[in-house]
Amino acid sequence: MNNKHVFSFSDGDGQDKKLLGGKGANLCEMTQIGINVPPGFVITTAACLDYLQKNELPESLMASIRDEIAQLEAVTQKTFGSGRDPLLVSVRSGSAMSMPGMMDTILNLGLNDETLAGLIRQTGDERFAYDAYRRFIQLFGKVALGIEDERFDEHFDDVKKRVGVKADVSLEAAHLKEISEKFLAVVRRETGKEFPQDVMQQLQLAVEAVFRSWMGKRAVDYRREFHITPEMANGTAVNICTMVFGNMGDDCATGVGFTRNPGTGENEMFGEYLTNAQGEDVVAGIRTPKALLDMQQEMPSQFEQLVALRQRLESHYQEVQDYEFTIEKGTLYCLQTRNGKMNAVAMVKTSVDMYREKLISRDQALLRIEPDLLEQLLHPSLDPDHAEEPVAIGLPASPGAAAGKCVFDADLAEKLGKCGEKIILVREETRPEDIHGFFAAEGVLTSRGGKTSHAAVVARGMGKPCVAGAEGIEVDVALRLAKIGNHIIHEGDVITLDGATGKVYLGAIPTLEPQFSEDLKLLLGWADEVATMKVMANADTPDAAKKACEYGAMGIGLCRTERMFNASDRLPIVIDMILANNTEDRLDALQQLLPIQRADFVQLFTVMAPNPVTVRLLDPPMHEFLPTEQQLLEQIETLRLYRDVVRGRQAALATISGSSQLPEPFSELSEEHVIDALTKKERMLKKVCELQETNPMLGHRGVRLGITYPEIYAMQIRAILEATLECTANGINANPEIMVPQVITTQELDHVKRTVDALKLELEKESGQMLQFRFGTMIETVRACTRARHLAANAEFFSFGTNDLTQAVFSFSREDAENKFLPMYNDSGILQDNPFEVLDIQGVGQLIEMAVSRGREVREDLKIGICGEQGGHPDSIRFCHDVGLNYVSCSGPRVPIARLAAASAALRET
Amino acid sequence: MNNKHVFSFSDGDGQDKKLLGGKGANLCEMTQIGINVPPGFVITTAACLDYLQKNELPESLMASIRDEIAQLEAVTQKTFGSGRDPLLVSVRSGSAMSMPGMMDTILNLGLNDETLAGLIRQTGDERFAYDAYRRFIQLFGKVALGIEDERFDEHFDDVKKRVGVKADVSLEAAHLKEISEKFLAVVRRETGKEFPQDVMQQLQLAVEAVFRSWMGKRAVDYRREFHITPEMANGTAVNICTMVFGNMGDDCATGVGFTRNPGTGENEMFGEYLTNAQGEDVVAGIRTPKALLDMQQEMPSQFEQLVALRQRLESHYQEVQDYEFTIEKGTLYCLQTRNGKMNAVAMVKTSVDMYREKLISRDQALLRIEPDLLEQLLHPSLDPDHAEEPVAIGLPASPGAAAGKCVFDADLAEKLGKCGEKIILVREETRPEDIHGFFAAEGVLTSRGGKTSHAAVVARGMGKPCVAGAEGIEVDVALRLAKIGNHIIHEGDVITLDGATGKVYLGAIPTLEPQFSEDLKLLLGWADEVATMKVMANADTPDAAKKACEYGAMGIGLCRTERMFNASDRLPIVIDMILANNTEDRLDALQQLLPIQRADFVQLFTVMAPNPVTVRLLDPPMHEFLPTEQQLLEQIETLRLYRDVVRGRQAALATISGSSQLPEPFSELSEEHVIDALTKKERMLKKVCELQETNPMLGHRGVRLGITYPEIYAMQIRAILEATLECTANGINANPEIMVPQVITTQELDHVKRTVDALKLELEKESGQMLQFRFGTMIETVRACTRARHLAANAEFFSFGTNDLTQAVFSFSREDAENKFLPMYNDSGILQDNPFEVLDIQGVGQLIEMAVSRGREVREDLKIGICGEQGGHPDSIRFCHDVGLNYVSCSGPRVPIARLAAASAALRET
Repeated sequence: MNNKHVFSFSDGDGQDKKLLGGKGANLCEMTQIGINVPPGFVITTAACLDYLQKNELPESLMASIRDEIAQLEAVTQKTFGSGRDPLLVSVRSGSAMSMPGMMDTILNLGLNDETLAGLIRQTGDERFAYDAYRRFIQLFGKVALGIEDERFDEHFDDVKKRVGVKADVSLEAAHLKEISEKFLAVVRRETGKEFPQDVMQQLQLAVEAVFRSWMGKRAVDYRREFHITPEMANGTAVNICTMVFGNMGDDCATGVGFTRNPGTGENEMFGEYLTNAQGEDVVAGIRTPKALLDMQQEMPSQFEQLVALRQRLESHYQEVQDYEFTIEKGTLYCLQTRNGKMNAVAMVKTSVDMYREKLISRDQALLRIEPDLLEQLLHPSLDPDHAEEPVAIGLPASPGAAAGKCVFDADLAEKLGKCGEKIILVREETRPEDIHGFFAAEGVLTSRGGKTSHAAVVARGMGKPCVAGAEGIEVDVALRLAKIGNHIIHEGDVITLDGATGKVYLGAIPTLEPQFSEDLKLLLGWADEVATMKVMANADTPDAAKKACEYGAMGIGLCRTERMFNASDRLPIVIDMILANNTEDRLDALQQLLPIQRADFVQLFTVMAPNPVTVRLLDPPMHEFLPTEQQLLEQIETLRLYRDVVRGRQAALATISGSSQLPEPFSELSEEHVIDALTKKERMLKKVCELQETNPMLGHRGVRLGITYPEIYAMQIRAILEATLECTANGINANPEIMVPQVITTQELDHVKRTVDALKLELEKESGQMLQFRFGTMIETVRACTRARHLAANAEFFSFGTNDLTQAVFSFSREDAENKFLPMYNDSGILQDNPFEVLDIQGVGQLIEMAVSRGREVREDLKIGICGEQGGHPDSIRFCHDVGLNYVSCSGPRVPIARLAAASAALRET
Repeated sequence: MNNKHVFSFSDGDGQDKKLLGGKGANLCEMTQIGINVPPGFVITTAACLDYLQKNELPESLMASIRDEIAQLEAVTQKTFGSGRDPLLVSVRSGSAMSMPGMMDTILNLGLNDETLAGLIRQTGDERFAYDAYRRFIQLFGKVALGIEDERFDEHFDDVKKRVGVKADVSLEAAHLKEISEKFLAVVRRETGKEFPQDVMQQLQLAVEAVFRSWMGKRAVDYRREFHITPEMANGTAVNICTMVFGNMGDDCATGVGFTRNPGTGENEMFGEYLTNAQGEDVVAGIRTPKALLDMQQEMPSQFEQLVALRQRLESHYQEVQDYEFTIEKGTLYCLQTRNGKMNAVAMVKTSVDMYREKLISRDQALLRIEPDLLEQLLHPSLDPDHAEEPVAIGLPASPGAAAGKCVFDADLAEKLGKCGEKIILVREETRPEDIHGFFAAEGVLTSRGGKTSHAAVVARGMGKPCVAGAEGIEVDVALRLAKIGNHIIHEGDVITLDGATGKVYLGAIPTLEPQFSEDLKLLLGWADEVATMKVMANADTPDAAKKACEYGAMGIGLCRTERMFNASDRLPIVIDMILANNTEDRLDALQQLLPIQRADFVQLFTVMAPNPVTVRLLDPPMHEFLPTEQQLLEQIETLRLYRDVVRGRQAALATISGSSQLPEPFSELSEEHVIDALTKKERMLKKVCELQETNPMLGHRGVRLGITYPEIYAMQIRAILEATLECTANGINANPEIMVPQVITTQELDHVKRTVDALKLELEKESGQMLQFRFGTMIETVRACTRARHLAANAEFFSFGTNDLTQAVFSFSREDAENKFLPMYNDSGILQDNPFEVLDIQGVGQLIEMAVSRGREVREDLKIGICGEQGGHPDSIRFCHDVGLNYVSCSGPRVPIARLAAASAALRET
């Protein structure tokens, strides 16, 4: 290990942020490229770690510091601790990762009773000097000696009160002198010792304090919150810098700036400054700072220096910079610079602009944007200026924001939606039969279920905001009201959802529409050129497919056919199919579904042509299409009561409604209707009981269903192939892919393949047309991964279903995990991320790699993609790229993010 | 491919059963080692396959057959088709695997009108000749010409009736001649052609018929039933053998024998014979055959030949033989031999005896026994002579047989059991709180649940018979009766269970006790010396551990601590722990459990010392210890009614019982008691609802629970370590292993390890003793396999939980799969075996291999075992041996099987 623990700004390696911290490295870099930085030096993070381990400073560190101080004295012609021409320094922390405000800073170090006199002599400004002194004592007292701010503040406030002023600037030198003396007394009282007068001792104590602040609670919490690992930043450096003063007169100033506007990305002077002020005054908000452009009038020559600085920073760093400066007696010093944090709009615009200005390459333009940031641009968002407090917080289940009238059932939502009302569907939880309510609603709010609840998945698929599992909300459908904490909301009351944060507000809050700007389109176009993976969308309906195209999807990677079954014109037929007690009845129902599915496919293929549409055959267990046992029991009870009513038992009638009038929905029905309905519900109940499973996720679903009831898959395959022929007849180049879910053995795949082959032969013969399509399998069981070599013999493509695969690898279901222990696991660091959001590379990833390599052993050109939720997550996309997948598929609104992430992954590889 | 399709008995390779069939190969072998076999030749299975593919005999086959016939003519000095000295042959099928009675045989081929005359001349026995002719015509007619037996039998019966005899032997030559003529007429009528007189044509038709019989329905069904795959046997050979006659006078005989007694294994002459008879007469049972030993008196010189044959067969084959012979005019011919099928007792005895006789080596003695066969010896079984019909059939969930009085609840079972009654516990399904009923019962019968239902698992663990999921049974606990089909069983009625077949009988059927003979002990002792893997038992209580020791377990590989929680003195405390709303209350309950668990462990460690006991920390989700929601709702309803009753509302009382007398269980209770009970049940109900999970197998269990409620694991670890110290203090060498279930990340294991380390330190300090134990993890999630390298850093042992791992790899739960689609998957060949019984090598096995190699990379001496159900299955054990596991652990009664299987695996490797 290198023993050099101290680097002068003119020596340190500006690239080595790990050793020098971000701030220190940039101070070195700026010094060395000729930017006017006050002279100083950096103490390394390695010294910090050494100190934290041994609880004492590394040997010879103070000697090196003394050497550097001597250098500073030589350059500045001032002397540290001198009563004549004292050198003052600032002491600032700075780690490899920016952790704003988390660690400590001390200004004006080097002041004591003697140097104070020197400072007064030197500046001729007694007020300035005492002001500096009292600031130093308090900061040093707090940071290095551990004295609470209040101990100082109370004296400061006393004096102000006594003098009768409000602003600090109104205090005169004598007041500040008095305050300084009181502060020294505070130190004496609190520590039992005099305030240290030895300036080298001051410096040592300050350095140690900054080192210690790395392990302070604030800093530790911050690192955990923002997932800053020791690999990213370990220990803090300390920057010792000659003090320059912006508060020595009207030819002095201090300010902060961005090289471009971080809100819009405009290439303009952006920032604020105050004349005759110290840095903290700009932040403190006591005086109102002026815009940097004003400086052009006020201090024209310094403004020119500032313009030059801005130019130099951008041309050197090739990135928008966030910088601090001080002007001391007409000379501009740059005290700090770092990459500017910007919103998505500004990031996109500056990327495109800087490329056009030839400041950065196209690759750089793509790489500097975190793909996830685009999320901001793709959904409506709440006006950031609103000041409402949320009344409930649930899970941020689908991004976007929407306001509308609460409606508690899907039918009413549909009705009101058709009348043009803006609706928020509010339910305890949603089920497939609520689907028409989703279409009608602006957003969905549920009080139960997690991020993969039906509500969440469907809303994400539709790109509508959803807040799920907002536990404080109780919905009483019968009374048509919901309780949120102490608030009662009636049906029709307006609420606002923020799907990005999970917050729910009363009343309407203005939302901002998403901005899919020309710049963004341009940028994503570049991304597509660079990426080697394609980005598909998960979309189940022609409408969703159209939307996905707008987001730039290059095909449909996952069309869940069962979603087509849920529409209200289809569900009754599907239920008939499920209730069928023999193959013949089942075939009858399927015969009715065939033309409906075929028509869906024709539309879907047409929208996407000539891009591929991967159709997954029926996956969920049958009982998902039926009401729950509880629901049926209630319905049956009601129907029985009503049967008694229509049979004339008025007494029974009285028990329902307390009056002899028939309840409205019944008044249209005859006894026969009721008996029919009752019989059907009773059959459904019987079936529901038959189909009950202990662990539905591990039950009778996917291809297992397809093999038990081969006529279902046969219908679906026929619908796909007939739709393909119909498209061809219409001159449309359909590109379907048939995908089998839940496969665990080659035999299962072969089984379905035989049906596909037979139908292909039949339809080709009948039509005289050749059918072009691909046949493949989901890889969503662990066994499919181990058997990939054999599956690839019959599968032309693999698509990883990483939701199910993750569940199988972790042996916990998303629903149960997210409601019970997963948050705790994430908080305590047992799991870094939620594996249902970010692909688990160490577990699931290993199986993906296994399946990819085994599959390609047998079929070199095997097309492989991923269609789980993680397919839209940038880190997961990078992994997919690295293991050689051909595409990712994600929900429509995440497609742009995935496009950028796919490009990033390709660029980072090279 | 070799084109030689025909081999003389003196040429064929006696080892090549695939080509020559088992029978043919043995005929060749016997001929070549000098046993007196009638001359003959074999047509290969390859010829058969060729014929079946092309539907015609391979080119030149008939020419080869003609050559072989010429050889026979030369040796026998007879001529095929000759009217003077005709050669007759038998035509028999014979594939590589024995398929008794499944394919066809034709005797006396070569007879026609002309050779018949020759035969008469040659033998001087007209009756014999016509008898041979009529037999031939019928057999040939049936096998080669497809004429039904009845067509012949009706004529035969007519003649017998007319003549007035019952036995065939009473018919005279004239009658048989008449019958032969009538048979020829039958052939003419049925086929429209004359019976073939050309003997070569007869032979060709016979060979073709035998070939075709390979694909006959009977044979195909048989192969499917017994899992005979094409790799094991493909096509049948045809054996053409010179006829020898046991029915040519009193110096002739025919018989069958075993070289040793296949029922007892005694080394004695075993078998039967008939003088003056053909082979089929022995089987037909018309005359009573004599024991072979009788021959010593009747035909002393032939008996000597037989003794020599028996000697020769055993010394050559080194295996008990099942042989057929014929004595023609004083000369003994051996017509067939094969390895004898024996029951388990005989297999064990002959193994030990043949080793002692130096006929086989110790390794051969071990290898010749299929380990699964031992099952017969380890449980009581139904007397095989009983003739009862079962009244219901369920799943054979735990082997053994038992008779006893039906009891419908565990409490009564316990009460009656204590009075010495033999009890069968009959329940819809069982739950942990029924555990005391299991202890009291001889066997368990349930009408719901599969082979891993609670009832099945617990019964297997206790070695008691269980029939589970017997769907035809309805239990009405309230009325104290059960319906089985049309039968009503009242509580106290006696029934008999056969856990090996799943059959349920009314009344008591005598059972045979298991025979753990000295021979078996000796054999298993040899097995232990040969095996490299140890065999542990899964046992949860000291009693079960004792039993496991008797079975030869070398330690406890899995002690499920939660089973200890279920005993009736503990469950209430466990429920208190679960209901606790804060850590303090939970600690209170745990404090009560600590001494109980510690005492259990002291006993368990003492029983097994110095062998290891692997204790798995709490695994199942909390709700498993609570009643179901349904049960609680019912109990609460009853209690509410009763509350009203005890409050004096007599009207409510009437609704429960129809009388004003208090129902018995309530009469002892005060209002206060009832309110207390009600409150507790309501709290339980609330908790049950809170704990509800969508997929309980994938929920909040195992280490997830241990981390959420660290005090539970802390209590268990403390109990283990304190018990260890207590054992040491008593001079007992306890050898505990602490095992963490459901681990998915290294962090989880580290988390528990920290608790273990802290408690170890504390207890060692307190006691002044060092603690010796191992710390390790279950490997039962897929992620644990991928992370094995990292887990091995802190785990000293791995134990594969292959039940859960299988579920994760297949993405289906055992319960749901076995009730829904698994039987269909097995029947249709999509899955060869039930992966929950036989380890799935292609999927689960791959993950096991991954975990083993990754784990041992980091820790060379990592101890690895398996403790899932598959650990007792011989094929799975072989896999475990091959991948290098150190031990298998299975239920106690399977330990002997596993010991033998472990030895087999070791022997087969070398």
